[in-house]
Amino acid sequence: MVRVAVIGATGYTALELLKLLARHESATVTVVTSRQYEGVPLHTVHPALESLYDLKFSAADVANISNNADVVFCCLPHAASAEFICQFDDSVKIVDLSADYRLNDVETYESLYKTRHPQPELVGQTAYGLPEWFASEISQSRLVANPGCFPTTAILALAPLIKNQIIDTTSIVVDSKTGLSGAGRTEKLAFHFPECNESMWAYGVGSHRHGPEMEQIIQRATGVQPQITFVPHIIPVTRGILSTIYVHPTAGNSVDSINAAWREIYDSQPFVRFPEQSPQLKNVAHTNFCDLWCQPAGEHIVLVSAIDNLIKGASGAAVQNFNLMIGCDQRHALC
Amino acid sequence: MVRVAVIGATGYTALELLKLLARHESATVTVVTSRQYEGVPLHTVHPALESLYDLKFSAADVANISNNADVVFCCLPHAASAEFICQFDDSVKIVDLSADYRLNDVETYESLYKTRHPQPELVGQTAYGLPEWFASEISQSRLVANPGCFPTTAILALAPLIKNQIIDTTSIVVDSKTGLSGAGRTEKLAFHFPECNESMWAYGVGSHRHGPEMEQIIQRATGVQPQITFVPHIIPVTRGILSTIYVHPTAGNSVDSINAAWREIYDSQPFVRFPEQSPQLKNVAHTNFCDLWCQPAGEHIVLVSAIDNLIKGASGAAVQNFNLMIGCDQRHALC
Amino acid sequence: MVRVAVIGATGYTALELLKLLARHESATVTVVTSRQYEGVPLHTVHPALESLYDLKFSAADVANISNNADVVFCCLPHAASAEFICQFDDSVKIVDLSADYRLNDVETYESLYKTRHPQPELVGQTAYGLPEWFASEISQSRLVANPGCFPTTAILALAPLIKNQIIDTTSIVVDSKTGLSGAGRTEKLAFHFPECNESMWAYGVGSHRHGPEMEQIIQRATGVQPQITFVPHIIPVTRGILSTIYVHPTAGNSVDSINAAWREIYDSQPFVRFPEQSPQLKNVAHTNFCDLWCQPAGEHIVLVSAIDNLIKGASGAAVQNFNLMIGCDQRHALC
Amino acid sequence: MVRVAVIGATGYTALELLKLLARHESATVTVVTSRQYEGVPLHTVHPALESLYDLKFSAADVANISNNADVVFCCLPHAASAEFICQFDDSVKIVDLSADYRLNDVETYESLYKTRHPQPELVGQTAYGLPEWFASEISQSRLVANPGCFPTTAILALAPLIKNQIIDTTSIVVDSKTGLSGAGRTEKLAFHFPECNESMWAYGVGSHRHGPEMEQIIQRATGVQPQITFVPHIIPVTRGILSTIYVHPTAGNSVDSINAAWREIYDSQPFVRFPEQSPQLKNVAHTNFCDLWCQPAGEHIVLVSAIDNLIKGASGAAVQNFNLMIGCDQRHALC
Repeated sequence: MVRVAVIGATGYTALELLKLLARHESATVTVVTSRQYEGVPLHTVHPALESLYDLKFSAADVANISNNADVVFCCLPHAASAEFICQFDDSVKIVDLSADYRLNDVETYESLYKTRHPQPELVGQTAYGLPEWFASEISQSRLVANPGCFPTTAILALAPLIKNQIIDTTSIVVDSKTGLSGAGRTEKLAFHFPECNESMWAYGVGSHRHGPEMEQIIQRATGVQPQITFVPHIIPVTRGILSTIYVHPTAGNSVDSINAAWREIYDSQPFVRFPEQSPQLKNVAHTNFCDLWCQPAGEHIVLVSAIDNLIKGASGAAVQNFNLMIGCDQRHALC
Repeated sequence: MVRVAVIGATGYTALELLKLLARHESATVTVVTSRQYEGVPLHTVHPALESLYDLKFSAADVANISNNADVVFCCLPHAASAEFICQFDDSVKIVDLSADYRLNDVETYESLYKTRHPQPELVGQTAYGLPEWFASEISQSRLVANPGCFPTTAILALAPLIKNQIIDTTSIVVDSKTGLSGAGRTEKLAFHFPECNESMWAYGVGSHRHGPEMEQIIQRATGVQPQITFVPHIIPVTRGILSTIYVHPTAGNSVDSINAAWREIYDSQPFVRFPEQSPQLKNVAHTNFCDLWCQPAGEHIVLVSAIDNLIKGASGAAVQNFNLMIGCDQRHALC
Repeated sequence: MVRVAVIGATGYTALELLKLLARHESATVTVVTSRQYEGVPLHTVHPALESLYDLKFSAADVANISNNADVVFCCLPHAASAEFICQFDDSVKIVDLSADYRLNDVETYESLYKTRHPQPELVGQTAYGLPEWFASEISQSRLVANPGCFPTTAILALAPLIKNQIIDTTSIVVDSKTGLSGAGRTEKLAFHFPECNESMWAYGVGSHRHGPEMEQIIQRATGVQPQITFVPHIIPVTRGILSTIYVHPTAGNSVDSINAAWREIYDSQPFVRFPEQSPQLKNVAHTNFCDLWCQPAGEHIVLVSAIDNLIKGASGAAVQNFNLMIGCDQRHALC
Repeated sequence: MVRVAVIGATGYTALELLKLLARHESATVTVVTSRQYEGVPLHTVHPALESLYDLKFSAADVANISNNADVVFCCLPHAASAEFICQFDDSVKIVDLSADYRLNDVETYESLYKTRHPQPELVGQTAYGLPEWFASEISQSRLVANPGCFPTTAILALAPLIKNQIIDTTSIVVDSKTGLSGAGRTEKLAFHFPECNESMWAYGVGSHRHGPEMEQIIQRATGVQPQITFVPHIIPVTRGILSTIYVHPTAGNSVDSINAAWREIYDSQPFVRFPEQSPQLKNVAHTNFCDLWCQPAGEHIVLVSAIDNLIKGASGAAVQNFNLMIGCDQRHALC
């Protein structure tokens, strides 16, 4: 059994991770941490986990975790995450669910996240945890940067097309719609039920940090950095991201080229599907699948990419990475 | 008192219209029709109207309606609507909530709606019921074509910018999100609660009939026909449309030019607002307002336009047109 | 024009009140107060009110309000409300939307609300603002206690039956379901969207303050104080309360007696309706109606009572009381 | 591997069953049937199952199923289910998810379901598939009647209390709230999204068929038949039932007696939990758990019982029964 610690275990990604790990035959959770709830039973904060675990929250003590865990899932906020991770030596493997090790360069990180990075030498050197593109890197890594939720939808849809020069790499529009669990488990007036139920809005227009992540990782995967206009929207569902992506095909290309490129790269992958109709959130909710589909419209081709933001967009991807890192089938606990 | 008939009064637009007309001091509803519910009390189909009206559904008899109504709101489906309307002489004014008289030419109509038009000579000659652009035409008309819901959001946002040559007229993306009431009050598996709750999807990609309507009416308003890629999405709310519109400014233009153009045209209009933040459906729900806002993002400028699809996108616009047609303040029953 | 002040104008009941007052032909809002937002435009906090008002929040200054308002709607929290109200002299009329003046005796108030009452002499002496039962008292009052939302559903259903001795007054069960706007506009983890969407729960079991309010006001209306077991539940809608009430008919009584008693008392009232089918929240949402219905089930008769908690359960009732207090038709701005 | 057939596989319970069976290590689905979709791939109807199964719908042919399946899950509507099941001989085990074999006597069945029963001799003789009460019967049965969703919540809460004479068996109120998936996957105006979103209503008041099922099975479990007034309500969520149950304790009994009785019977059961706070749908959604909790209120004790109607209320219970019938741990595929 691989012993597992979950750091910062009070949020939604940790909750989802613990639900998945409860089904994992090769993993046993030994440590869950929370500064605020030290000593409190896990199920007091997460009643959904009652009877699945008999654990109490402890403080996030590096020595204790090193002694009791082989793999650490770090669910701390950005900056706090790197501060914590940089204290571990090589004996422990780590999946970092924050944004701290995702980007290609430390300048972009520090400019976007308005903070100094405690381990700048690892930025750009850390495996990006999208197994569909970086599986061999992930399986050999001690530290894996779990992808952002919006970038997962965009990179999976766009990277094959950019790699195969099927679309223009400028003037790409990624219009994403996300459920509220993406905002985390922290009360905020904007996410108070009557404020967002029966409503919807765009946010982070022109400034959301996941835009540069999409561009940089596509560059890492394909060698070409696209120009993406990314606008996320809040919609009143709990789970799921649906991204509608507007691209211009290069000369001679069409939806057939797109479908062929997608299938060539993803047919061997267990978690990318090609539904016959436009993807719907409900078909990917509570799964690790990404559903991809395309259709011509006006002078564009429209790509639609859908995931569960908490699973393929966070904790499911983390378990998929964990499976590669411990050398077992990447589908473990995810089907 | 202006005597009013509502034809096809079992659907959501009719329900909403009847709620608004119940507050209208110059209108009295004398006839509500339904083939299926002839003889049945109005409140049996619409319990929300109980105690507001003491009416029964009758058949849609042209002679009877002509005798008992000065103005007819026609809420029939397309094709059925024109078949009915073409039987009236000039003694009755009509607001048509269907798509039958909206487009610029009959060829586009017949190709999109797959039917012959019974009054082809009126297509392109009928006032388009968007008072912000066609008020004087509307006030002099006997027949007004009430706008489509999605076109209302797009035309109000785009027409001032195209008229003032502030944006490129090609490669415009209109990504719209609509609540389910837009699908009408007819049971269909796709709109069964468990099928659309906690879900979302794109539909009509590359084929929705409101795309050409946007392009043609902007041409009518500004003289220039833009190329629009329009993709609507279903989101799990009952009411509201939020359209996110991606445009390229022409040289020297910016959000300032856009805000100036909007304000120049709409500052005298009672139902267009400019919120400080990104529009939210909840702020326009149950109102006749259209909220407009813009922000730069990547190489685009992003416009956001929000309405209540049943009010400004249908029945509120119909009352606004009615007010102009009977010569009263267009805000009657709408504030 | 009656000049109106709204005190504590940042919450949902104030927002709803201001929407209603914008349609009121005899009222003009002159003052809106907020400690936190003094000097800020009203529409910055409530974008839905943009273009309906041109007001800024001011501090809640008694002298200023007395000079500029004829009627005050007080939307402060309990205790704060009475502290504020007791500073006014008789020149100003007041509708208090808090619980401070609703109960029959100060002992119950202080025990339930855990605070001393600054005007104990008015507790039990203040008109309870349920016009269906206390209209003449309300129209002669300077201060009216606007009813609680749950009590409105229960009192309207039960008082006619208890007055006419149609049901046992012990062992009554009131099982209420409320939307989230009832929880107010204050962020709280329990009301964070992902915590309550797709969920539901009972709360305040055995301890909710509206239980005693129901019992005491029914006593005031009928002379008999019933024993009520009241359990409210949170359901994931924004607006509306549906109460399912289980009663035992006394010998010889049935649904017919209940319907007869209801109609005798309410047929002259504009805001109580008797739908043919079980009431549905959507039919009362955004209205001032209370829909009542009953049906036998097992050894009980089941009463169902539905309102919009923000309208008939709060701000609509407040306007209805205001109409009585200023001597105009109680339907003004409410139909 | 146990070969499994799912009959009537187009509905929500079949979809959920197939999701669970995809994770079951000892089961392989060999047949899925649908009259309407014969020959169509399973994922065309259920896109959520794409890549989990490579099956097409076939007709429900008894010989073919007998040859290819060891266990049959029958998801047909009542009456159709028994018609089908009575054609099988003893070589096949069957879990029937309809109501056909649940009740104690055929008279009640025929009176409630308005149809003659094709196998009256089995009514009252078939194991009721609630393992917490009838596990040994289930494990020895060839045919198991899977429980109704509402009865599951009521029986689990009430049976221990009635068995131990802790509560009065008359005047019990069961006020249940269910999500829309309980209404099945058939379009119907009442369940059209805009009809039920932001709404709620009571239905089947005094006539719902699950009331007698609760009473009869509690009698079978405890020897005493209680009198239950049962009122179900539709609430706008997809999944979950929360039942609020009002009981009178017998002399000397209290919440302590109730908690003790529950724990004595259920502490050895894997799927009954006792949360510290009032149960919430979200904590049981997508699980096979039933959460039980109680609190005094007025002269009653209030019991709250919550399940996922599609899992513990249908397909999860079916898999739990299947596990018992094939002799494996009842938690297989359910944790």
